[in-house]
Amino acid sequence: MPTCVLRITAPDQPGLVAAVANFVADHGGNIIHADQHHDESTGRFFQRVQFDLDGFPLARHEIGPAFAPVADKFGMAVEVRFCDEVPRVAVLASKAPHCLAELLSDWRAGEVQADIRMIVSNVPDHADLAAFYGIPYHSLPVTPETKADQEAQLLALLEADHIELVVLARYMQILSPTIVDRFPNRIINIHHSFLPAFAGARPYFQAHERGVKLIGVTAHYVTAELDQGPIIEQDVARVSHRENVKELTRRGADLEKIVLARALRYHLEHRVVVSGNKTVVFA
Amino acid sequence: MPTCVLRITAPDQPGLVAAVANFVADHGGNIIHADQHHDESTGRFFQRVQFDLDGFPLARHEIGPAFAPVADKFGMAVEVRFCDEVPRVAVLASKAPHCLAELLSDWRAGEVQADIRMIVSNVPDHADLAAFYGIPYHSLPVTPETKADQEAQLLALLEADHIELVVLARYMQILSPTIVDRFPNRIINIHHSFLPAFAGARPYFQAHERGVKLIGVTAHYVTAELDQGPIIEQDVARVSHRENVKELTRRGADLEKIVLARALRYHLEHRVVVSGNKTVVFA
Amino acid sequence: MPTCVLRITAPDQPGLVAAVANFVADHGGNIIHADQHHDESTGRFFQRVQFDLDGFPLARHEIGPAFAPVADKFGMAVEVRFCDEVPRVAVLASKAPHCLAELLSDWRAGEVQADIRMIVSNVPDHADLAAFYGIPYHSLPVTPETKADQEAQLLALLEADHIELVVLARYMQILSPTIVDRFPNRIINIHHSFLPAFAGARPYFQAHERGVKLIGVTAHYVTAELDQGPIIEQDVARVSHRENVKELTRRGADLEKIVLARALRYHLEHRVVVSGNKTVVFA
Amino acid sequence: MPTCVLRITAPDQPGLVAAVANFVADHGGNIIHADQHHDESTGRFFQRVQFDLDGFPLARHEIGPAFAPVADKFGMAVEVRFCDEVPRVAVLASKAPHCLAELLSDWRAGEVQADIRMIVSNVPDHADLAAFYGIPYHSLPVTPETKADQEAQLLALLEADHIELVVLARYMQILSPTIVDRFPNRIINIHHSFLPAFAGARPYFQAHERGVKLIGVTAHYVTAELDQGPIIEQDVARVSHRENVKELTRRGADLEKIVLARALRYHLEHRVVVSGNKTVVFA
Repeated sequence: MPTCVLRITAPDQPGLVAAVANFVADHGGNIIHADQHHDESTGRFFQRVQFDLDGFPLARHEIGPAFAPVADKFGMAVEVRFCDEVPRVAVLASKAPHCLAELLSDWRAGEVQADIRMIVSNVPDHADLAAFYGIPYHSLPVTPETKADQEAQLLALLEADHIELVVLARYMQILSPTIVDRFPNRIINIHHSFLPAFAGARPYFQAHERGVKLIGVTAHYVTAELDQGPIIEQDVARVSHRENVKELTRRGADLEKIVLARALRYHLEHRVVVSGNKTVVFA
Repeated sequence: MPTCVLRITAPDQPGLVAAVANFVADHGGNIIHADQHHDESTGRFFQRVQFDLDGFPLARHEIGPAFAPVADKFGMAVEVRFCDEVPRVAVLASKAPHCLAELLSDWRAGEVQADIRMIVSNVPDHADLAAFYGIPYHSLPVTPETKADQEAQLLALLEADHIELVVLARYMQILSPTIVDRFPNRIINIHHSFLPAFAGARPYFQAHERGVKLIGVTAHYVTAELDQGPIIEQDVARVSHRENVKELTRRGADLEKIVLARALRYHLEHRVVVSGNKTVVFA
Repeated sequence: MPTCVLRITAPDQPGLVAAVANFVADHGGNIIHADQHHDESTGRFFQRVQFDLDGFPLARHEIGPAFAPVADKFGMAVEVRFCDEVPRVAVLASKAPHCLAELLSDWRAGEVQADIRMIVSNVPDHADLAAFYGIPYHSLPVTPETKADQEAQLLALLEADHIELVVLARYMQILSPTIVDRFPNRIINIHHSFLPAFAGARPYFQAHERGVKLIGVTAHYVTAELDQGPIIEQDVARVSHRENVKELTRRGADLEKIVLARALRYHLEHRVVVSGNKTVVFA
Repeated sequence: MPTCVLRITAPDQPGLVAAVANFVADHGGNIIHADQHHDESTGRFFQRVQFDLDGFPLARHEIGPAFAPVADKFGMAVEVRFCDEVPRVAVLASKAPHCLAELLSDWRAGEVQADIRMIVSNVPDHADLAAFYGIPYHSLPVTPETKADQEAQLLALLEADHIELVVLARYMQILSPTIVDRFPNRIINIHHSFLPAFAGARPYFQAHERGVKLIGVTAHYVTAELDQGPIIEQDVARVSHRENVKELTRRGADLEKIVLARALRYHLEHRVVVSGNKTVVFA
């Protein structure tokens, strides 16, 4: 069933919900999911409205223009999305295969609504996995000296194929602002700690040193500041003094796979709205 | 800030969301929380809309009648509630004090928006606790022979004081249909298992026998069938072979307190809609 | 580092712990992990002792006989295992690929210490996955009429290859006692409910009907009674009225993968002792 | 049933487990719980052995001296504790009553094996609660100017009554080194964040600002560095963009009560060993 999603941000004011609902109702549409949020601290209003396109009298490209008067009246920023849209995605990975393998396996099972165009890695290890799934694989080794070059190649690949979303499936290289700035809120990273605790390198080592009783992982959008971008999803698992760093790493791997998958699903279903450095997730 | 909550159930159809939103907007009201749910299996639509009463032009008693034409048009069942309403509550407990003590402590801290009118128990144990909180305490001992009499006394107490909500804070007597039928969806029980597993007597013993790796608790509305009513909230805790029945009981007590408190809060904030034998909780 | 695991069951009595520890110490061995459990209700004692083989003066095959006098004295049942043992495993799956794919991916990453000898399925779907991982694939379709034949073929495959452990990675056929009895406590199943709730068919449908607020999964050893075997591991995830059966199924799939992997790891590391219809898991 | 707990720390070496087990067995004692841990990074060995005193031939005061030769041989630091020991405890609280109320309610129900000698607060609010439970209440108001004086009064109270354990049940004053140094690993604090995230002031505000998807709490021993002491226990709860700071605070309160209770129980049952800035909790 094809559906349309309106994702709206506006200054809060009376009549917003009615105006959007009327737009759908006046065209005879049926809302199948609607959720909204009023952020007290900023006075901003966020809404996600999903309605059935079956029988809707407007063509897809007509919906935005038809909605424009409503948006103008209330000062809304609005995005018009369609649930059968399939964005062009690049997956980046380093040595650890678990997040990449999970994502590909889910994708093959039809659970990831994305057009995975390429896998890029700084190691050659995953070429056969990519081949099995029929996805082009680019191995771009990197050293401190070649980092600028490697990033230029990476950017060229992303742009040549009109990539819309980048998924860092345990890609252990820091992306430079050149790349980050091209994909605002369109690079999803999985960081293997419960941010803001243990940002930066070797989080499981840090967690072990501090003696925490739970380890966590965080999926977030990448911004210029390392591990500081808007958090999409987090989860934790219980550990004890028994787990050494290696075992924390293994325990964490299970979390990483699942939290990245969950965050990606939220993104692909147009459920995430970024507000400042935070997200509203209409789960 | 006083607010009004409309709790709506209707057959799903286009225009419902707009109609309710327009009702609020046409009176210049501001929606501060709205949530809805379309149940695919029954075709029913559920909505909770909360709006600011400050500056709203209708008096409280005028809102229902003013909304009636909308309700009629769409075949809505609607309840009009106010967030500063404080229902008259009776708390029933047996020997175990933890749920009762927690509820009273939270209530005193201003976190339970209820008018706790009485504590009733089949044991005299909690009289001093009740006295400390300034709440009348009724000790109604019960034996198989006196059960009918005891229930008649209990019902008389509830009715004399116009009780609107009954909270079973580990009250270990089965209420007869006479009482249950008087309070449809207005008796909340905390059952110490993850229902439907381990319904009936001695759930921690049953859980221990079966060797489960998690224990759970369930807050639900009481219906004529024991432990079969609509579930409001559940939670679990990890256990292992190490815990004997006594330790499971202690671990579970922490869960019981918190899950009962959470379910009660949902109920008091008019967040729960019963649909058949299930609940929609607009949390 | 090669290690030996002694897994001991005995009637509880003073001196047990000392006797086992002395056996290791008297040979100059170093205990690197020891855990024990005294079950009050049965008076049974369970112990898992893992010690370093590096420098241990006895050859592997000499350890059991050397320990026999200790075992005899205390009436111990003892199993002698080695951590680098790699049992011969068959994985059975039906249509849903997620548990199978996860298991193979983990196995390839070196995280499953098993010799996966074959994948058997009642559907042909996973042949290419098996080929990618270099594992023989047997497609054994089954109908009510051919069930006995199919099981005979299955059993022949298992026996011909000396399979020691069978993993049911969402294999949706009920194994007959003929097979179950050959592999006591050596068939691990993942059931997609929080047992004992929702045993039998279509557990997510049952969970949706009952309106539970958490869904769960259970890894257990298979016994003659369906879904009644000793529980190895369980976990749950929060759901709400929003999830329909399809979404519960998807949410549950993440749990199934991880709980099966965890149970399998416990088994392979010789951490599970079955006691009656329960397990002691020395995690 | 009276039991003795030996809590042992030693450099790891072969024979340790056997030596302790033999000590108990040679006196005809029966070990009812034993757990040990070898910390790879430090090479330290930790053990907790609990044995039945019923029929044990040594008097309580004789056990330590009798064990001394074993301790000497292996360089063990050993503590001899008894499970019916009831330490003298002071509970400190500020305005928020929930942790204090919970602790007292549990204590009255017989679930906290402590001799609660006094409640000290910088506000007078909890005097009637203390009176209800029959515990002396000391209201010691504090301002920046009077902090030194107030602490001197506090310390005098603690010392005059031979307090052995201090529980900070949401006591919002920073204790000076003078007090902290007197009670090494004997002051338990509940911090309302998932440390090391959000140390310091207003953690729920910080959590809200950062947009985390889980909030947490941490029970830890107090050391000279604020919120840096050894972590005993942690837990988390899921939140979303919907919760404002006030609601995070309320959600967190439930966690705080339970995590503090759990940490206190571990401490009172002699299950916690501090190792550097971490804990081994033999739960």
